[in-house]
Amino acid sequence: MNPDVVTTLTISLPDWLNERLAAPIWIQGDEARMRFVIDLAHENVARRTGGPFAAAVFRSDDGRCVSAGVNSVMRLNSAVLHAEVVALMFAQARVGSYTLRVADASYELVTSCEPCAMCLGAILWSGVRRLVCGAARSDAERIGFDEGPVFPESYAYLERRGITVVHHVLRAEAAEVLDWYLRSGGVVYNG
Amino acid sequence: MNPDVVTTLTISLPDWLNERLAAPIWIQGDEARMRFVIDLAHENVARRTGGPFAAAVFRSDDGRCVSAGVNSVMRLNSAVLHAEVVALMFAQARVGSYTLRVADASYELVTSCEPCAMCLGAILWSGVRRLVCGAARSDAERIGFDEGPVFPESYAYLERRGITVVHHVLRAEAAEVLDWYLRSGGVVYNG
Repeated sequence: MNPDVVTTLTISLPDWLNERLAAPIWIQGDEARMRFVIDLAHENVARRTGGPFAAAVFRSDDGRCVSAGVNSVMRLNSAVLHAEVVALMFAQARVGSYTLRVADASYELVTSCEPCAMCLGAILWSGVRRLVCGAARSDAERIGFDEGPVFPESYAYLERRGITVVHHVLRAEAAEVLDWYLRSGGVVYNG
Repeated sequence: MNPDVVTTLTISLPDWLNERLAAPIWIQGDEARMRFVIDLAHENVARRTGGPFAAAVFRSDDGRCVSAGVNSVMRLNSAVLHAEVVALMFAQARVGSYTLRVADASYELVTSCEPCAMCLGAILWSGVRRLVCGAARSDAERIGFDEGPVFPESYAYLERRGITVVHHVLRAEAAEVLDWYLRSGGVVYNG
């Protein structure tokens, strides 16, 4: 075996996030769920475990938190590990299916910032029925993060595929975490 | 610890692909690289380890194959594990950086089919300088795969960020693997 070929990748959450998720969590309502997610984004900055973004997957019916993710790009040296991708991967692992569009429940993704082009696509394939966003694309771009080719038509495409999209839930609070990341010397990486 | 919370994900390649990559590989030229990638897509169907898509990352200068990926959505129950995402994740792990835009070399992604919306975004963040595509979006859609919100402006966005895009390299051969997947009873999953 060629010694520098990598044959397995391991994706872990920060320890503090595993501790937060150790006991079951139920949260009802978009604002309360967004507050939970914004707090995770804040914690990811405070603990210096990644960029100022967090997301979580909830069961729509009972509000059970199925998974949560924080930006892990720098921590795990992997550009795809945005908060939304991490949350969706862990949700699918927990449900045991590559799609969350399953018979017994309906799932939604709550994210602290409108998704970049990659995450918007990942959301489309994930099987979630609803997407709830905090900060706006322009809030992330203001501090230097590129959001990629996302257009009004991109959201229309999601809606046509049966995904309801809600924007600007607690936008100011979500955007404040972004600004704080920049002020605290966080690295604004891009491809 | 809540017993059904997942705390670690493991991403592996199929055994046959690890065997193929065990010895170093150098390939020069777009067509030869595409032929390698199309063969991996074909093998992924033949071995029933996933969908009819493959991708690989090469060093632009010496043609060294840094990583390869095949569609692993159903095998690993994870909707984000398209061939391009898998190849980029393994390339970044091998290079040890979340961006392939590093000082000592320039990298490119060769993919058997034009990327979906998610993969196009992942390519933007990956740091590759060049993207080479085989089959067209319409070839994948013809057999029922959704490609998501990718528009001419999406490719223009990549080009503006310094990524050269080449389309339709060995398109007919690449599309033939897609058609064969459908004929052989492969599952066309979507979100």
